[in-house]
Amino acid sequence: MTNPRLKLGVAGLGRGFMLLLPTLASHPGISLVAAADPRSEARQQFREDFDASTYAEVADLCADPEVEVVYIATPHQFHRKHVELAAAHGKHALVEKPMALSLEDCQAMINAMRRANRWLIVGHSHSFDAPYLKAREMIDSQAFGKVRMISAFNYTDFLYRPRRPEELDTMQGGGVVFSQAAHQVDIVRLLGGDSVKSVRAVTGSWDPARPTEGAYSALLTFNNDVFANITYSGFAHFDSDELCGWSGELGQPRDPDQYGFARAKLAEVDSPEQEADLKNARTYGSGFFLSNSRPQDSTHNHFGFVLVSCDNADIRPMPQGVQVYAHTRRYLEPLPPPVIPRREVLDELIGAIRNNQQPIHTGEWGMATMEVCLAILESAQNGHEIKLSHQAIMP
Amino acid sequence: MTNPRLKLGVAGLGRGFMLLLPTLASHPGISLVAAADPRSEARQQFREDFDASTYAEVADLCADPEVEVVYIATPHQFHRKHVELAAAHGKHALVEKPMALSLEDCQAMINAMRRANRWLIVGHSHSFDAPYLKAREMIDSQAFGKVRMISAFNYTDFLYRPRRPEELDTMQGGGVVFSQAAHQVDIVRLLGGDSVKSVRAVTGSWDPARPTEGAYSALLTFNNDVFANITYSGFAHFDSDELCGWSGELGQPRDPDQYGFARAKLAEVDSPEQEADLKNARTYGSGFFLSNSRPQDSTHNHFGFVLVSCDNADIRPMPQGVQVYAHTRRYLEPLPPPVIPRREVLDELIGAIRNNQQPIHTGEWGMATMEVCLAILESAQNGHEIKLSHQAIMP
Repeated sequence: MTNPRLKLGVAGLGRGFMLLLPTLASHPGISLVAAADPRSEARQQFREDFDASTYAEVADLCADPEVEVVYIATPHQFHRKHVELAAAHGKHALVEKPMALSLEDCQAMINAMRRANRWLIVGHSHSFDAPYLKAREMIDSQAFGKVRMISAFNYTDFLYRPRRPEELDTMQGGGVVFSQAAHQVDIVRLLGGDSVKSVRAVTGSWDPARPTEGAYSALLTFNNDVFANITYSGFAHFDSDELCGWSGELGQPRDPDQYGFARAKLAEVDSPEQEADLKNARTYGSGFFLSNSRPQDSTHNHFGFVLVSCDNADIRPMPQGVQVYAHTRRYLEPLPPPVIPRREVLDELIGAIRNNQQPIHTGEWGMATMEVCLAILESAQNGHEIKLSHQAIMP
Repeated sequence: MTNPRLKLGVAGLGRGFMLLLPTLASHPGISLVAAADPRSEARQQFREDFDASTYAEVADLCADPEVEVVYIATPHQFHRKHVELAAAHGKHALVEKPMALSLEDCQAMINAMRRANRWLIVGHSHSFDAPYLKAREMIDSQAFGKVRMISAFNYTDFLYRPRRPEELDTMQGGGVVFSQAAHQVDIVRLLGGDSVKSVRAVTGSWDPARPTEGAYSALLTFNNDVFANITYSGFAHFDSDELCGWSGELGQPRDPDQYGFARAKLAEVDSPEQEADLKNARTYGSGFFLSNSRPQDSTHNHFGFVLVSCDNADIRPMPQGVQVYAHTRRYLEPLPPPVIPRREVLDELIGAIRNNQQPIHTGEWGMATMEVCLAILESAQNGHEIKLSHQAIMP
């Protein structure tokens, strides 16, 4: 007996959707039945690709009786409103990270879905990537003793990829803390295995032309005495994919000789409008559609260098599996290559809705990650250590 | 006109001396004229190797009129007393890191040498390594803009190498904060280019059989807004030499297939006494002497992964030179291979004494590094951020 496919409606046909499109389109447990987007060309493309209903308004999508779960991939600042709409219509929700821009909004989203008695899953984030989930499973096996310390760093040219103005404005959810720390914090929380106790962080806003946080370094302590340092630079010239076998964040092969591409491309741009055009040149319905969305993934997604120091081994999630450095030998615990990239997020969603399996990435989980991200900003601003109080632990 | 060789007396023929012996013996500006050590076999070896005076007591070495500068490589807790002895006899001093175990002792050493109007140099530490000095010089050239962030991490099996009991007792200067952070802090201070403002750190004492700090992670802020994360694990299974082209800390080629050697060797040991014997099996005068002290160095010394994020490039000191990741290209700024390993420390000493060149690694410099190390211990103990107040900046 197989479960019926989950009927999913997409709210927002932007970049989040584009990154998940290959997954959504090929996952055997999902049917794309509807979508909402203000852009008519995106709606038209969706109808052509999926023979599905489309709406200009998210409210109408949520009201569609065909839709069981709403995938909310709208701009960050609308997440709360759209989750509340989904809840009001009795729909489950999968909401992109960052979950929201304030803890108040996160709590409201959790409350709305609780009242509606529906599931709220926050993702995709890279903590869904198979190598991190596998590392967690290996840690849980007790074979390596206690987790003690985690180092995670990621060096990218994030800030020099084409951006819309709001992506460079922290108040609107721009900058790497909302966008990138959400991944890294999710990963170290997954691997740390307990609630985060405190955060001390510094952020860097080094380029007046890109006036938002482009870098940070943070020291996290956990209630189980694990500690973690997480460092990110989106201003980087060094690329930490070099330490991941030149496999990219999306699992794609990287060409180490294609150096400085993002900055070179951006240098040709004269204005914020032109930059936004560059970003929008290849959006869904305008140069990008289902049949050219196949990723060239050959390995799993990743988020830079991550090393977990345990009593009996150091564990290093890698694009091909989990590298184990144990007392007497080192070996790769291999993972089969991904057939459907990022499928883990939909597996978790389906497991919750269809089989009532407890998901990891609940609303409470997402809120705990956002509390860490907001603490990074706050600590950087006032120079203090921040104690946390909304830390769900892994179910 | 060449300067006469600096007549150097060695206080302590232990491990510090062994590591510097190839340098001392081959540097054209140095004459080894005397040594002091309580072990008669070490003294005898020194007489055979150098046809020089030897003493059982450091006081007698300091009184030797032949000696111009005393190289103090005695156990940490004697550094203050021996520097004060050197000063009392009007000798310059080169003192090994850690400079001392308290700021009070550091200040007393500085005061004693000031009163004597003699030079005090603290080293060797890895911040003398040519790649870090070269990186500093490149930063000073202004070609790369401001330094913004530094990441430094080092994963070793430090804690599982044979140790004497006091090396595993923090109160006696044991553990990786005194021994290893002294290197890493020195490096990031050199590259950060200003005084350190604050330290937040966590340490790890994970193995009851080795009851001292074996790991730490710290977040440092500088008064010029640079920030640095420094992480060390001496419990490690992963070896960060993997990221340094399998070149070891001393510049020696590492065999990546010789895995888990330290732990395997230690597992054969039954008692602390046997472990101390293992450590002492190859000391100066007992299995180790001048003619077998030649290092197999092929590259420069290093202290793990270090990356300096500047406005216009990321700079990565490497065993062969300085790897530069700039806007449009990446390249290695090569360094000639070291002919005399670690010569930089003696060059700085000679430059100060013979040519009155301002050294970097003064007593004030060493005290500032010790303040950071002590702040790492204090922050880890009480969970607070520590503000610093004894931070000399680079001359």
